[in-house]
Amino acid sequence: MWKETAISNAEWTGVRLRDLLLLAGVNPNDTRIKHVHLEGADTDLEGQCYGVSITFEKAMSPETIIAYSMNGTEIPPDHGAPLRCVVPGVVGARQVKWLKTIRLSDVESPSHWQQRDYRVFATSVEPGDELDWKSIHSIQEYPIQSAFCIPPPGTKVERAEGTIDVAGYAWSGGGRGIIRVEVSGDGGKTWQSAELEQDENQDLDHMWAWTLFRASVKIPEGVNKMELVVKATDRAYNTQPETPAGIWNLRGLINNAWHRVEVEIID
Amino acid sequence: MWKETAISNAEWTGVRLRDLLLLAGVNPNDTRIKHVHLEGADTDLEGQCYGVSITFEKAMSPETIIAYSMNGTEIPPDHGAPLRCVVPGVVGARQVKWLKTIRLSDVESPSHWQQRDYRVFATSVEPGDELDWKSIHSIQEYPIQSAFCIPPPGTKVERAEGTIDVAGYAWSGGGRGIIRVEVSGDGGKTWQSAELEQDENQDLDHMWAWTLFRASVKIPEGVNKMELVVKATDRAYNTQPETPAGIWNLRGLINNAWHRVEVEIID
Repeated sequence: MWKETAISNAEWTGVRLRDLLLLAGVNPNDTRIKHVHLEGADTDLEGQCYGVSITFEKAMSPETIIAYSMNGTEIPPDHGAPLRCVVPGVVGARQVKWLKTIRLSDVESPSHWQQRDYRVFATSVEPGDELDWKSIHSIQEYPIQSAFCIPPPGTKVERAEGTIDVAGYAWSGGGRGIIRVEVSGDGGKTWQSAELEQDENQDLDHMWAWTLFRASVKIPEGVNKMELVVKATDRAYNTQPETPAGIWNLRGLINNAWHRVEVEIID
Repeated sequence: MWKETAISNAEWTGVRLRDLLLLAGVNPNDTRIKHVHLEGADTDLEGQCYGVSITFEKAMSPETIIAYSMNGTEIPPDHGAPLRCVVPGVVGARQVKWLKTIRLSDVESPSHWQQRDYRVFATSVEPGDELDWKSIHSIQEYPIQSAFCIPPPGTKVERAEGTIDVAGYAWSGGGRGIIRVEVSGDGGKTWQSAELEQDENQDLDHMWAWTLFRASVKIPEGVNKMELVVKATDRAYNTQPETPAGIWNLRGLINNAWHRVEVEIID
């Protein structure tokens, strides 16, 4: 889904980046190493390879792998064959496809993609302003978000149905598990808790996949339109802002405001 | 400060809980150990000792210590002498004072304080509802928050001053560093970035203390009142909700909505 965040889930098989680095003789206690630069084989129009970096700590975490298999078979070319980096809990931009080079450093990758492409400006920075890229931080972990997949916007529901079935996903960065999803049928005035689909042995502090939710929302008497809203809460009790007003930024990145879908009630 | 979150900073000296557990023969790879129960010497009216638990992972993290000294001297009795647990990035309720007992377990502490006292209900749970404590999660890490310390509410500022100096703190749980604080003088319509006080070598992924901020907000022409607002962003791009409406909960816990302070402009 591109519109409500480009997000999907797959089963990845690979070797731990940690094991690879240790095998290459890297000293895990070398405090000079702060970042790991990852470079793909794909190039921009000027011949520059795609490149970003993750922290050395994340690179050494057991969940970070160099994948050679996706969903039990060879990685399709579009998804980074033959090798891609999978960095759970971190924004997709760091999960380098067609992986070619791994480099250790005391600084972040100097690439365009690390230094400029995925950085979020303050609300006060406006079109035409001089952009001070150095003063803002590269996105690594994501904040909490949630979205409806069902129903799509503009859906018409017969009043006689009595309820609307809604479903979607919630996700938070850094492995912070989803502990609650609430939905509203009246634009956020009243709420109900949704049912969550999670493995009951799920480790809430290392949850790398989305949580699916579903709920049945009552159609109130006499309404012709309903604004469905969803909001989620993660393990650290982070929540989503009500509207994008307070998180507006020049490049439109990381809009995790409550997701709203309007449906029409027909007789 | 109790009102805008009970929060303070101190310098703690102690031994790593990790080292203590290893010395006691605990196997760090024993997957049966999921939680560490901490019990203080203080009791409730029924003689029950205060007790809570943290995850085994957090207990084994290098920042979690059993402190014997505060700000370079003996811990004052009020702060937990002779020993207290300090669990950076986690809510104060887990930082057990007058520490008496440490116990390993596969489940969370069965105490009132772990099972009931610090759990946040969904917005839909109202006074009089039956409370299903089992279905909600104990607070461990905190979400991002920020607050003004200066000026206090009800301050009167002479129009001739031209600007209002504001200052306060921002903080987020789990060691997620503060990367941005923005303040507004018009209730959140327009914003400016505040100056942050941080060590320039601060590790943004392990920031256990607050970040102080300061800014000078212009007094617009013709206004008699200004609503000052502050919001912060952490390393994972978590932000605060605009109002408490979407995070309202029965017990009033973890209200991290934008902090607002009204000041009067006098001629």
